[in-house]
Amino acid sequence: MAATELTLYELTGANPELRFSPFCWRIRLALAHKRLNANCIAWRFSDKQKIAFSGQGAVPVLVDHGQSIHDSWRIAKHLEENYPSQSLFGNASASLVQFVNAWADRALVPAIAQIVILDVFNGLHEQDKAYFRASREKMLGASLEAVVEDKPTKITKLKRVLAPLRQALGEQAYLGGNAANYADYCVFGMFMWARCVSPSELLEKEDPIYTWRERLLDAFDGMARAAFTVSENQRLKVTYP
Amino acid sequence: MAATELTLYELTGANPELRFSPFCWRIRLALAHKRLNANCIAWRFSDKQKIAFSGQGAVPVLVDHGQSIHDSWRIAKHLEENYPSQSLFGNASASLVQFVNAWADRALVPAIAQIVILDVFNGLHEQDKAYFRASREKMLGASLEAVVEDKPTKITKLKRVLAPLRQALGEQAYLGGNAANYADYCVFGMFMWARCVSPSELLEKEDPIYTWRERLLDAFDGMARAAFTVSENQRLKVTYP
Repeated sequence: MAATELTLYELTGANPELRFSPFCWRIRLALAHKRLNANCIAWRFSDKQKIAFSGQGAVPVLVDHGQSIHDSWRIAKHLEENYPSQSLFGNASASLVQFVNAWADRALVPAIAQIVILDVFNGLHEQDKAYFRASREKMLGASLEAVVEDKPTKITKLKRVLAPLRQALGEQAYLGGNAANYADYCVFGMFMWARCVSPSELLEKEDPIYTWRERLLDAFDGMARAAFTVSENQRLKVTYP
Repeated sequence: MAATELTLYELTGANPELRFSPFCWRIRLALAHKRLNANCIAWRFSDKQKIAFSGQGAVPVLVDHGQSIHDSWRIAKHLEENYPSQSLFGNASASLVQFVNAWADRALVPAIAQIVILDVFNGLHEQDKAYFRASREKMLGASLEAVVEDKPTKITKLKRVLAPLRQALGEQAYLGGNAANYADYCVFGMFMWARCVSPSELLEKEDPIYTWRERLLDAFDGMARAAFTVSENQRLKVTYP
């Protein structure tokens, strides 16, 4: 099929090159895994009209031959069903991969948000900032500035949340085993979220998760490593213990 | 092979029929899954001498043709490698199953302990009680009585911790997909721990996890459902909202 028959609407910031959504990253990687090209369209929180056709108010939205699919998990299943070569789930049950997907959503998103949420805000276009601050501060029950106070403690807490991933990567290179699959991308998307917007280093070099992340940054000809970040220079200088 | 060539040392309480260790349950279920019989030997915390041959101070310890293997994850891998029929991991990578194993250890054990730890203590033989109280109170930084205060709140918290499992079971019957595998047993063992010692009901009937637990209680001719509990009558009467 022609590349132009798949269209992915992706969240972006002030700079349209900044594609930082962890959920959109999952789909970017899923498409690369299946060697599918998609026409990627930048979308901002305030661009409601742009995806009104899908009936959704958020991305990722994938349009495949005129059919629109939303929600990263549903998109992954759609791709697996409709483009079965290069399986996204390997031979694992969908429910086992979905478990990792849900763990990343429920356990990792809040733990990483405590470190990078203000950086996300700072990367946004002016037209999105008021909405983002109001909705996230309501959700978190505190100002964005208060949420990210004492980052070293938050990074220590994240390290504990990541314990199951660390243990699983102690014996094999990827959650998928010898090769990465969608379980890996579900989690790696979270690290791309942080990488794209924040100077904070979330992992210590000695952590097996760091090595795993390096491998995924290099995957698909370094696609993730080459992604635009707001703070490449700054990020290399700032680390927390 | 003859049934007697596998021996499993299992934690027990005052009543030697009470086999409540979540880690030993994983191996019970793994053996049943592989249709292997084992000679199960009751062991108490203070029976150090009984497993001294293994170099370990805790169970499960499996002895297979004279070779002793400890730690439930290592035992599962040993069984999978040495008795490959009826695969424990299905076609999933070992690391993906190990992720669930580690999540149960790191996220579920503490959340369930906050509800049942005093019931565990009450089920123990007198000879184990002083050791158990001292070691667990040191670990938890509070008296066992204080740890289990306000169970309804702890049960609500457990419900949140279980969110990834609930989501994964929304589309398929088991973490293993259409059939249970070791990923399911890793988590189900935690519910058996609670069931054997505690009158507290951890799940609401409407929860997909409740239905999944029912199916696993019925598996292998109702092996888990038939297990001795300290409080069968009491358990049926006590629920938390």
